[in-house]
Amino acid sequence: MSVLPEPLERLILALERLPGVGPKTASRLAFYLLKAPVEFSEDLADALKVVKSRTAFCQTCFNITDFGRDECVICSDIKRDNSLLCVVEDSLDVLALEKTAGFIGIYHVLQGALSPIEGIGPDDIKIFELEERVKKGQIAEIIVATNPSMEGDATALYIRQRLQKYPVKLTRLARGLPVGGDLEYADQSTLLRALTGRQEL
Amino acid sequence: MSVLPEPLERLILALERLPGVGPKTASRLAFYLLKAPVEFSEDLADALKVVKSRTAFCQTCFNITDFGRDECVICSDIKRDNSLLCVVEDSLDVLALEKTAGFIGIYHVLQGALSPIEGIGPDDIKIFELEERVKKGQIAEIIVATNPSMEGDATALYIRQRLQKYPVKLTRLARGLPVGGDLEYADQSTLLRALTGRQEL
Repeated sequence: MSVLPEPLERLILALERLPGVGPKTASRLAFYLLKAPVEFSEDLADALKVVKSRTAFCQTCFNITDFGRDECVICSDIKRDNSLLCVVEDSLDVLALEKTAGFIGIYHVLQGALSPIEGIGPDDIKIFELEERVKKGQIAEIIVATNPSMEGDATALYIRQRLQKYPVKLTRLARGLPVGGDLEYADQSTLLRALTGRQEL
Repeated sequence: MSVLPEPLERLILALERLPGVGPKTASRLAFYLLKAPVEFSEDLADALKVVKSRTAFCQTCFNITDFGRDECVICSDIKRDNSLLCVVEDSLDVLALEKTAGFIGIYHVLQGALSPIEGIGPDDIKIFELEERVKKGQIAEIIVATNPSMEGDATALYIRQRLQKYPVKLTRLARGLPVGGDLEYADQSTLLRALTGRQEL
């Protein structure tokens, strides 16, 4: 016999399915929502209901965009440099790069990375579509900005292999110590990368 | 100009209002929900919609219960010891104590703790209702299980003051080192409490 009423139990179970939310956090969130004004949980419920139906993927770069738009705001921005393409794993990476305000090119969102363990092959992510864009010949440089992880590196290598026949320059984001980081706390591989990639002062 | 479509932006903002969820976590959760099967976000939305309307507070102990019930499952359980009352701050504490399976008495949920800083006085929590229950004379012992914090301690002291005229034994949960804890990492006050509260071996 559970001590909690069924509707609350159900909310806790639904929250527990979110990534990084365990049973304790889920209970805490559920009780918080229970105590908060009713508009609060209704706003969230409404936002959840429409998020899937009112968003779509940009047909050019596969970034997330408003439903009904063929192109996202970046692809349709005429001030963007169409010869510089940045390949990322997902839309959150576009967001992160846009926040730097240091990139004026366009994007290509793979919607994943190669991962044999999870059974994700080249056909499961937007690599074919990337090649199609390259074929058109407008792109001069591709910055492969997949994550600095096993999967991200594998994806970058695969992209290099697949695109080497096209006259396009391929680059990868720099690796090294993060800004504001502490040398003492850096892991071995990062430190090794920082050493081998050292630059003239 | 935002890079994200409006429905997604709205979901991120709604998620950000949850306790312990910052802008980065909110984005991550929103994108996760976007990728997950549609039932997933719908289940959560439905659970959110009904959680307030289909729950109520037990009219005896003020724990959360199903809407339409006057008494919660604990208060209506005849096997419970009605002479032993445990006073807690909120329903989550009831849940935690129930999980120990070591308490056979009943509860009283204050729905908060005294906090002059936040402007919460005795009339804002269920202390009057506690006194009413004590007046009936059925209760022999009250375990004050408010949190071991400033507010919890202040509430416990206030309860002692207010109930001292009744023939009821008042106890407080033991303080000391947590089970599985490390002496080296214990904070000063906990260690001091463990010392002064030492028990014969």
